[in-house]
Amino acid sequence: MKRTLKIGELLDGVQRGNRKDISRAITILEDDLPGSRQFYAEIYRRGGNAFVLGVAGPPGAGKSSLINCLIREFRSRGRKVGVVAVDPTSPFTGGALLGDRIRMVDHSLDEGVYIRSMATRGSKGGLSRGTKKAIDVLDAAKFDVILLESVGIGQTEVDIIRVAQVTLIVVMPETGDSVQAMKAGLMEIGDIFVVNKADLEGADRAALEIAQFARSKDGSKPVVLKTSARTCDGVPELVDAIDKLAAGARAAKKSWAGDGALDDLREALGSMVDRTFTEGAAEAGWTELLEKVARREMDPDSAAELIIREMSGFTGHPSGPRRRKRAHR
Amino acid sequence: MKRTLKIGELLDGVQRGNRKDISRAITILEDDLPGSRQFYAEIYRRGGNAFVLGVAGPPGAGKSSLINCLIREFRSRGRKVGVVAVDPTSPFTGGALLGDRIRMVDHSLDEGVYIRSMATRGSKGGLSRGTKKAIDVLDAAKFDVILLESVGIGQTEVDIIRVAQVTLIVVMPETGDSVQAMKAGLMEIGDIFVVNKADLEGADRAALEIAQFARSKDGSKPVVLKTSARTCDGVPELVDAIDKLAAGARAAKKSWAGDGALDDLREALGSMVDRTFTEGAAEAGWTELLEKVARREMDPDSAAELIIREMSGFTGHPSGPRRRKRAHR
Repeated sequence: MKRTLKIGELLDGVQRGNRKDISRAITILEDDLPGSRQFYAEIYRRGGNAFVLGVAGPPGAGKSSLINCLIREFRSRGRKVGVVAVDPTSPFTGGALLGDRIRMVDHSLDEGVYIRSMATRGSKGGLSRGTKKAIDVLDAAKFDVILLESVGIGQTEVDIIRVAQVTLIVVMPETGDSVQAMKAGLMEIGDIFVVNKADLEGADRAALEIAQFARSKDGSKPVVLKTSARTCDGVPELVDAIDKLAAGARAAKKSWAGDGALDDLREALGSMVDRTFTEGAAEAGWTELLEKVARREMDPDSAAELIIREMSGFTGHPSGPRRRKRAHR
Repeated sequence: MKRTLKIGELLDGVQRGNRKDISRAITILEDDLPGSRQFYAEIYRRGGNAFVLGVAGPPGAGKSSLINCLIREFRSRGRKVGVVAVDPTSPFTGGALLGDRIRMVDHSLDEGVYIRSMATRGSKGGLSRGTKKAIDVLDAAKFDVILLESVGIGQTEVDIIRVAQVTLIVVMPETGDSVQAMKAGLMEIGDIFVVNKADLEGADRAALEIAQFARSKDGSKPVVLKTSARTCDGVPELVDAIDKLAAGARAAKKSWAGDGALDDLREALGSMVDRTFTEGAAEAGWTELLEKVARREMDPDSAAELIIREMSGFTGHPSGPRRRKRAHR
């Protein structure tokens, strides 16, 4: 990464779908390396076309096997598939059984498939800015479908439904306790529920229970389907259902594209303010304010207001905060 | 709430522990009512003494019954107890069985107990700023112990361990599946694990499993205890264990008080930037930037940088953003 970033070259490579360039582009944006700001501006302009499918569910439900089936099915329909995995228990991110890892290799020679695992969490929990930017890179690289895999609890769940046009929840054929646990969040974010391992006992009953309790984000009843990720049974029907919902989302795209921009902008703001504060704290004298707060001589809101007033002098990238020290009485 | 906020009077009431004043103070801060900024500055200065105990665990584990036992035990030791509940499934926040609600009434005539339920989530998930401020109010009102009750999944879990000096995880005597689910987050945030409903079968085995898998935030083995919240059996021993950890935390207080201030300040910054952006968007012309982002003519980071540069002119409370409109090319 020592040579100067040649944005034009890298951008060409990404747009041609060159794997090495895609990997490098994601790393540059994830690690915020020099030149990343200008590069991201170019990447972002070239996106907005990919369909993002969120895939969430508890560990052990068979998400990664199902994703393998989905990749195969989407490929058979001639679509390029990217996978961004943020689930720490996923084999894609490394917490894997050997069997799962080996199966991944199926796709490793196919230029129409790109798989990338990301750091799990942003500074505020949920998806990191880097994850969003990885999706933007795959979008610019003309991947038709981007699978966003997450364990989907807590803040990640909120972020998935913001980023993905359609969200798939993968569950096991179990009732009672697992449905109770699901209520903690997953039951309200799915557009499609997949009861995986459908050959196990209880699959029909689980599907019925989910149909009864779950609702999608717009309040309607979600689609409930059964699959077997071991054999990929039920996956063609699943992709049909996804495509149907995707077509609906695409028809409504104008509005949610705008929503997505607001989220992106608010997150970029939060992340930039946090970074500017952290990087500029010593030089700007904000550490003195922090000490006052620690001594309870000043409250955090008052300190924050002073900092925001001064922050305009400390933005700017990649040169870092400008040297300008102020004394705070 | 129409009369002008008399900060001095309200502050006196809070410091005397007057319930009505405490309730009003929390509402003023939670809803960010006029005068809240100056009032919060006064409240914050008067805090820093209370011991905050996080109480988390899955729905149905008996958190609220256990909290009733804890209140009773702390009261018998002469301490004032505040409860701030952010768990949407908790009877304290309204999602209750009638039996639980009735038991709450036990404490309703005791001036040494104050219970408040809060909106569950901040804008970024996790605890809201209002929740933190409620704790600051109870702190200023000289409550010795503040119980922070949360379901503790996802972002809330991260926030609890930041805010609470000691975190208690309440679990049921079940093994296998529930332990698996716990791994999703709770297993790594507890200083003390309580196997509640210890009269049920499997309690000993669950305690053993937890002792094996769990670790506290500093990496050490957590304390594992058994209680029965129905009879309050085991609760005196639990409070002894809490007190022991609290003493350790107090001895180390200087350092984590500073950490807490950094978190408070970063959150205040994030929350103020978000609000300033939302409230000032139209007047400042930032909606034009947002539209550019939505049309992919500009990336979110570049838009955020422009906004931060201008934001200094739009802070200030309670008057709201100043009128100053700019055109963005």
